[in-house]
Amino acid sequence: MNKKGELIVISGFSGVGKGTVVKKLIEKYHYSLSVSATTRAPRPGEVDGKDYHFKTVEEFRNLIDYNGFIEWAQYVENYYGTPRKYVEDELAKGNDVILEIEVQGAMHIKEQYPDAVLIFITAPNAKTLQERLEGRGTEEGKVIAKRLKRAYEETDDMPQYDYLVVNDDLDTCVDDVHAVIRAESFKTKKHNDYVNNMKEELFAIRKEILS
Amino acid sequence: MNKKGELIVISGFSGVGKGTVVKKLIEKYHYSLSVSATTRAPRPGEVDGKDYHFKTVEEFRNLIDYNGFIEWAQYVENYYGTPRKYVEDELAKGNDVILEIEVQGAMHIKEQYPDAVLIFITAPNAKTLQERLEGRGTEEGKVIAKRLKRAYEETDDMPQYDYLVVNDDLDTCVDDVHAVIRAESFKTKKHNDYVNNMKEELFAIRKEILS
Repeated sequence: MNKKGELIVISGFSGVGKGTVVKKLIEKYHYSLSVSATTRAPRPGEVDGKDYHFKTVEEFRNLIDYNGFIEWAQYVENYYGTPRKYVEDELAKGNDVILEIEVQGAMHIKEQYPDAVLIFITAPNAKTLQERLEGRGTEEGKVIAKRLKRAYEETDDMPQYDYLVVNDDLDTCVDDVHAVIRAESFKTKKHNDYVNNMKEELFAIRKEILS
Repeated sequence: MNKKGELIVISGFSGVGKGTVVKKLIEKYHYSLSVSATTRAPRPGEVDGKDYHFKTVEEFRNLIDYNGFIEWAQYVENYYGTPRKYVEDELAKGNDVILEIEVQGAMHIKEQYPDAVLIFITAPNAKTLQERLEGRGTEEGKVIAKRLKRAYEETDDMPQYDYLVVNDDLDTCVDDVHAVIRAESFKTKKHNDYVNNMKEELFAIRKEILS
């Protein structure tokens, strides 16, 4: 049975720890991770090609013109995009590709890749989410309220996701996401060729036995 | 997030080893296994309540009249059925229930329980299936041809199953089936209540912070 590469889109509430989940998932299960391109300046410690592909505005716009992104968006004055080549090359090799991406981008991906698997990482409950945001200790009440408002709005998009996985215990969450990706590869609709081959082979073998 | 019990239907080609897969799955992951009722006589070594619930024809027909089965069928002169009470009790407790059942029965289950997860255990290819049937050593060519004919017919029903899992290596197959069941519990459509609660809670918390 041929295994095709799965395109896995991971989103989640701000503060839910999805970055950590994705990092651990890649380390433990060796999925291919798509690195976004951006025009924003690198922050201290960020490595080009690892954290982001850093581009000038001119380079980025040129890539848009050449259909170089499977999705892109502009926030304030910076561009962010998912490079097409890496994703399509990995999928063609049969590798599963992880994209960590915002809700809007996730919806654009689903339009172009209907087989993409959309996973939303969530918290056990709203209280826990609030505590995690407060736990960062760097943000004041107003900022936290703003993030909770955004989370509130994002609940409207949750039904568009195929799976909701709770990040309560990190290791459990990572294994849960891995189980989802593994299970997706067994979906019958992805194996029409296998079913047709099986049918033909069984017909031929039976004929041979009876002859 | 409340976890509801999943109803898992496992079918597969004759000779594919699905009985062994189910046995190992129950041992390793402690799923609840539904035991069928039948009117056929126990074979040597078979234990009432473990291999089957052995019933008289009168008892069985009475159970049909009282809606005691979620599906039943008659093969030659024997009845076979899946007792309703065990399945519904386990699901109500939030336990996942495994049914090992023929293709026709699986379709009846899906009609009544649209959320049931249908898994078809298959072989890497037809040649392997033939070899396994021959490897039993107890059956002659005609019987094997008959089983392969049945397998050929069953390929028509494979697209009705949600997942196809290949039994090449037994342990891998068992873990693959387990991953499917685990993943199913995260399907967004099964967690509408969670999403609605999250929305209400986030709204209330944000209001509290801003007040």
